[in-house]
Parts: sequence; C-alpha cells; structure tokens
Amino acid sequence: MSSQSNVGPTRALAELVAGQATDAIPAWALHEAKRTLINVLAVSLSGTREAPSRALTNWVRAQGGSVRATAFGGLRTSPSRAALLNGYLAHIEDYDDTHIPTILHPSAPVWPAVLAVAEDRGLGGRETLAAFALGMEVACRVAMSVYPWHYEQGWHITGTAGIFGGAAGAGRALGLDPVRLTHAFGLAGTHASGLREAMGSHTKAMHPARAASTGLESAELAEADLTGPDDIIGGRRGFWAIHSHEGHSEEQLLGQWGERWELGKNGLKPYANGVVAHPLQDAVIQLRNEHGLKPEQVASLAFRVNPLVVELMGRPEPRTGFDGKFSYRHCVAAGLVDGAGHGAQFTDERVVAPEIVRVRSLITETTDPAIAEDETHLVITLTDGRTLEKHIEHATGSPENPMSDAMLELKFRASATTVLAEDQAERLLSAAWSLDEATSVDELMRLTVIASVAAG
Amino acid sequence: MSSQSNVGPTRALAELVAGQATDAIPAWALHEAKRTLINVLAVSLSGTREAPSRALTNWVRAQGGSVRATAFGGLRTSPSRAALLNGYLAHIEDYDDTHIPTILHPSAPVWPAVLAVAEDRGLGGRETLAAFALGMEVACRVAMSVYPWHYEQGWHITGTAGIFGGAAGAGRALGLDPVRLTHAFGLAGTHASGLREAMGSHTKAMHPARAASTGLESAELAEADLTGPDDIIGGRRGFWAIHSHEGHSEEQLLGQWGERWELGKNGLKPYANGVVAHPLQDAVIQLRNEHGLKPEQVASLAFRVNPLVVELMGRPEPRTGFDGKFSYRHCVAAGLVDGAGHGAQFTDERVVAPEIVRVRSLITETTDPAIAEDETHLVITLTDGRTLEKHIEHATGSPENPMSDAMLELKFRASATTVLAEDQAERLLSAAWSLDEATSVDELMRLTVIASVAAG
Repeated sequence: MSSQSNVGPTRALAELVAGQATDAIPAWALHEAKRTLINVLAVSLSGTREAPSRALTNWVRAQGGSVRATAFGGLRTSPSRAALLNGYLAHIEDYDDTHIPTILHPSAPVWPAVLAVAEDRGLGGRETLAAFALGMEVACRVAMSVYPWHYEQGWHITGTAGIFGGAAGAGRALGLDPVRLTHAFGLAGTHASGLREAMGSHTKAMHPARAASTGLESAELAEADLTGPDDIIGGRRGFWAIHSHEGHSEEQLLGQWGERWELGKNGLKPYANGVVAHPLQDAVIQLRNEHGLKPEQVASLAFRVNPLVVELMGRPEPRTGFDGKFSYRHCVAAGLVDGAGHGAQFTDERVVAPEIVRVRSLITETTDPAIAEDETHLVITLTDGRTLEKHIEHATGSPENPMSDAMLELKFRASATTVLAEDQAERLLSAAWSLDEATSVDELMRLTVIASVAAG
Repeated sequence: MSSQSNVGPTRALAELVAGQATDAIPAWALHEAKRTLINVLAVSLSGTREAPSRALTNWVRAQGGSVRATAFGGLRTSPSRAALLNGYLAHIEDYDDTHIPTILHPSAPVWPAVLAVAEDRGLGGRETLAAFALGMEVACRVAMSVYPWHYEQGWHITGTAGIFGGAAGAGRALGLDPVRLTHAFGLAGTHASGLREAMGSHTKAMHPARAASTGLESAELAEADLTGPDDIIGGRRGFWAIHSHEGHSEEQLLGQWGERWELGKNGLKPYANGVVAHPLQDAVIQLRNEHGLKPEQVASLAFRVNPLVVELMGRPEPRTGFDGKFSYRHCVAAGLVDGAGHGAQFTDERVVAPEIVRVRSLITETTDPAIAEDETHLVITLTDGRTLEKHIEHATGSPENPMSDAMLELKFRASATTVLAEDQAERLLSAAWSLDEATSVDELMRLTVIASVAAG
C-alpha cells in the first residue's frame, strides 16, 4: 500500500483488484465463494415467491431489453436489469450472508453484478468465483474502513459499501485496467446510498439491487471511457468525508491485501431474519429441543443481549411478515413455538398467530455492551418454578461457529425446492459445487429457471 | 400544512402534489415551465455532441428495451432509460437552468422523468406541464428545506433533492394517490445521492440522469404496490437526519403551498458554465462591448466576488473543456477574448489557447460574503493606465434580470441548429410554445430526432 498511497486510496484499491492473480487466491476462499453462491441461490429462489419480488419481476419484464443475462427464476434480460432483480431476490427474505464485523450482506450487491457480466461475456467458472471474491473483498473493506461511524449515522451499509463491491466485481469480470476501474468506482461511489430508515419496507432490498445494477452499469460505462473523479473514496468531498465524517481507516481499506480475506468472516444465516437475533434463536431452540419444551410450560424468557438487538430489531408488536423479521420478540417466540426461523415463520399469518403473540409478551431483555453481537445469555422460567439457562457464545453462522457444508446443503434443498423440482435442485447444487471447473456460468443459470417465472 | 403535519412531512408533501388542481397553477408558472422546456431542449440537443453523451447513448442502445419513450436525438427505448439519457444530456454542458436560492438545476432531474411517462401513458400537454411544475416545485422545496447545510456538507443538490423531483413529476404524471406517492418518495429518496467530488468529471451529469431514472422507476414501482418507509424525509434516519444533520426547515418544504412557486426563482443560463461565474462574465463582456476592448489593452482584471465563486470554480489552470466550466478565470478570459460563453468557449482546444491562457493570469479576486451570488464588482486596469468599472447587481438569467423570451429563442436556435436543420428547429420551438394545447407530447418528441442518432 505504501507505494500506491501517493495516488489516493481509490486508485490504490483499483490497482490491487486489477492486479490480483486468480491463482494466488487461497483455495479455501474460492470454496467459501462457492458456499456463498449456493446460499444466495437458495434464498433468491425462495425469494421469488414474495409479492414485491413478483412485482419487480413483472416490472423488469415490461422494460424489455437485449437478452444477455438471466435473472434467478429464468427471466432473460439485459445484464444490468438481471443484476437489479437478482440483487433484490437475494435480499428480500433477509436470509442472505452477513459479513460479521460490519453486518454488511455481501452476496446481494456483488454476486448479481458478477454473474450478469460472466454470462454476458462468457467468463469461465474459476474467473467468476475470483471476481466475486474480489468484489466481496472490496465491499467489506470499504465497509470496514468506515465502521462503526458510518452505520451509526444511519446508512444501510449493504447499499453504500455494497455499490463499491458491485463495481469491483463487475469491473474485474470485465477485465478493466486500474484507471478504468478507478473511474468505475467514481461513477458508482457517487451514488452510494441506502438509508436504514427504509428497513421494514419493500425498499430495503432495493439497496443491494441498485448497488449491484449501478455498480455493473458503472463498470460498463467506465469500459466505454466515461470518467469519474480521481479519488471518490478519499477525496475532499468523497465517501469518507461525506458518508463517514466522524472517522475512517485507510488501513482497513488497503492493509494486508492478499493475507487478510474478508470471506473468512462471512457468515451464512440459519434463520431468515436479522442476524443480531440469531444467538437468541439458537438459545431458545436449543433449550426447546434439549428439554422438549412446550410453549405453555414457559412463564418467562429473560435475555441479556448486545444493545444492537433492541436498536435494530426492537419492534414489539409486528403486524406483517416483513415486520416480524425486525422483531427479535417474534423471532424468539417463533423459535419456541415452531423450533425454526425459516420462511414459514415470517408469513403475515404466522406473525399474528395467537400462540406466538402470547409468547412475545413473556420476553424481556437487558442490554449490555459487554455482550458480543453474536452472543446471548437466556434464562427461561417455567410455570412450575424451574429455571433453564443457556449461554450462546457464538451464534450458528458466525465465523467461530460456521454452518457446515452439509447444513448448507440442507438449507439449500429446503429453500430451492419451494420452487424447483428436487432433481433440478440437486443438479443446480452440483453445478454450483463444481463451478470452478465449468467453462461458463450458462448451465448454472439455466438450472435456476422456474417454469412459471420464465413463462411470465 | 398544519392539518397534515401529524402524518409526517413526506406524506404531507405527497398530499399537496397529488391534490394540486392543474387549473389552480398560475398561468405565468405554466409559461415558465414552457421556457424551461425550450431551454432544456436547446442544451440537450447541443449536448448530444459531447463524447460521453455519445458513449452513454451507445450504452443505452445496447440495453435494448421496449420502445415506449424517446431520448432527445431520437433513440427509442424504455421510459426509465430515456429518462436516464435525457437527464444526462440536459446537464452535460452545464448550460441548463438554475434555481437561484439553492443552485439546484431542476430541469435535468425532472423534465426527463415527466416526458418519458407522458409519452408512455399518452398524457396531454397541459397535464405534462403541470407535472413538471409540481416535480420542479418538490425538487426545489426539498432543496430549500436543507439549504445551506446540505450543500456545504458536500452533496450535489441536483442529484440528491433532484431525485424527489423526479419521483414527484413521474408520480404526478402517473396519477399516483398520496399513499403510493409517499412510497415512491421512499423508494427514490433512500437513493438520494451525488457527491460534489464528481464535479469536473463525466460522472457529474449522471447525478440528474439517475435522479430522473430512479425517480421514474420509483414511481412506477410504487404504482405496482412496492412500499417505502412512512417518512423518508422527516423520519429518524431519513433525508433530513442523514443528509443534513446540521439543520433543516419544514416550513421551507411545506409552507405557502400554492402561493410560493419556485418556478419564479428559476434562472436560464446565458453562459454554458457554472452559474456563480455569470455575473463576472456579464461584467467583462459588457465592458468589452461598451469600450470595444481588445485583450492586449488589458493589464489586469480585479473582481470582488461572493466566496462561492472561488469555492466552486477556483480551478486556476484548466486543461480540458470540462475543467474550463469549473474555472471562473477561464470563463472571464474567454468572455474578454471571445465576448461569449457558449459551447465554442469550452472545447479542449479553446481552454488551452495561448491568448486565453495569457488573460487568465491577469485576473485577481477578493472574496466578500456581502457580495450576493449573482453580483460582482469589476475593475479593469488598461495598459495605458485608465481604469474601467462595472457593477453587476443581478446577473443575466437571475430572477431580477431574467432572459427574455426573445433571448431564450436566440439561445435555442444557436444550440438546436448545431444538430437540427433550421426548419426542424423552428417547428420544435413552435411545438414547445404550444405544448399546453397539444393532446400529447408525441410531436414534440418526434421533432427532437437527429437523423444520425436515430440511425445508431
């Protein structure tokens, strides 16, 4: 980084991305890239069933466009529209992956941009995985460079930092040189956006959708010789100055390149809701299963939690499935009653079911900054006076307690088969696991086709 | 506003826009809307010749799309792509209109969104003008509500406040009810973006381009029942809190609706560069013409100026035509040498012409906050020792000193005939002046066709 810092951090980052040899990316990181792909395919296919997903699919279909890329589900359209729709599908169920240090969801803004370019330009599977790994690295490093100030200001980091990742992933897949990639960062980064105010509405998933599509468009426009500012990240009125005026870290952006890989800190979610509630769900589901608990045996549930749990998921009485994903009380109650936190626990009906609403009223929490974001202590008091305790040190899906490949396959099958036949789901899973050996992404994308979506 | 404030400012604004009777819009405001249309047609047609305009046109063409709208120049595409390209063309020459109190350029983010919906949905001319007037009103009122804090933070207000105007104009043209228009504001406003860091690069004109297209897309998606947050403007982590954390004014957003029309404070530019240099150009060109000055007679030019002149246009030695538009020294030098500030003064060649570079070195300025943004004092000292003085109280194009309709027609003809035959330019001008009587915008848009652009 020392030799590059005279050109500014944006150009330095572009040099690193463009100059990275695919062969020098560790094998474990490319394996992790495949795991995030399998995860994002699972949640996106399941996400096609949501009402706003169908509305956006219909809107994209009505735009027409030269058919050079595939949206999950099978709609063929232009690369940027495919990236828009796939970015939406990837995030609509709040069931995608999470970069633990920043709570950024890297797959939704990056994978759609990479896949659309890969399909349009005939990229091989291994180069596609590398482009994702590098785009994801950029999104997460931009996020780390402004964490925690930026998020605390009120930005949805998946949209803001994500757009740099979309541009990087698409730019790498297009083979942009460092100068054009710097322009692509400028074209994209000036539109870094997404407010946490939008959480709980259909708009939230538009953040990674636009990060992916605007990132991809910016890379294509830079390829066509449009210019951006010299240093959108570090410039006087750049991203650091405007979007994180209380602080930033150049070391987090550029340091230890090639040694520190953010893919190693990326968690896959076992539950279809905000990640900060996951340790609470682990705790209640583990006690439920260990003791065969029935809801009517429980008098109270008392948690000690990180303050973000209340900050991000404090809605006490959700009324819709969407709301439920931002209510840790609903997540915990559904965990006790149903023993799970998949799509079925976040329907409009399930969120107002009396047996779940009743349990919500039994839950209390104490916030404690000393409790980590992936940690919780739970004390359940039973109606017979007994107490049960559970300490979750690291929630399932955290780097210290990752989902295994086998668990990931179970999640994939449960999600994908909501819309695909079992044999198609198996072939898609197999195509993803062997993507590094494929000469293109064509078969992978073809296997995401849902007959009803493709037919329109 | 009092009765609406209990629903939050975003919903209150949506009620006002959706509820505004077209017949209650003053005739002078609709006339001013026509003037801004003529102005934006002029600069957009001229703007088609710029290299980045051609690149973006080719990119939009490559996207394909259902042909439901027309980009200036004749490319037929989807409404949102037409809005994107037209927003770019409208701003690429920095020759569009300016809302004087906020330095927002309202036509570029609003007219493209309105025209694309009007063409797609067969809106009549009068309703089209009304939709622009209301979209423009929203962009400017959002801008006034955060001025000056927001701009000083480093935001390019044409992009950020402009996106609310794009959504409002498109939403009005689509006939959205207040609930859906509130959602459209949420879908759009969460992507309010555009950093002043991008000024001087091809990226700057992407700000209104994306404001227009994302604003339009947001209105279409709200029509399709996607939801946004309840109050993207006034919410805890909304536009006011995040994009203008040092202050905001609800009165500026909502007060005196129907009485105060921001169209009355919109200036049309006589020069193709940043507006804060216009009084300086008026001063030097008036002295030049009054005294028949030759550059070689001039020993020095000393200005007293508002500090924004140096802040926004302080580049001392521009090297490209783009740079020249952000250098008040170049604008003044070209004014003395050429007596004008049109496209010809901002080519890459003209910016480095020795006779102009020489004059730039003779210019000094004193900044004084007591000098208004549209004001300047100039003292020219001649080589023979004489001094000439000029005080510009209000630059040409300011509300106190507006361009006349006749001057506007001269600007239109000079700009449009760079790409259109004279008779087509005259018919287009005529179609714009009589738009309020037209049953659709079809003829107007057809008359913008440039044979070479339409042929691809």
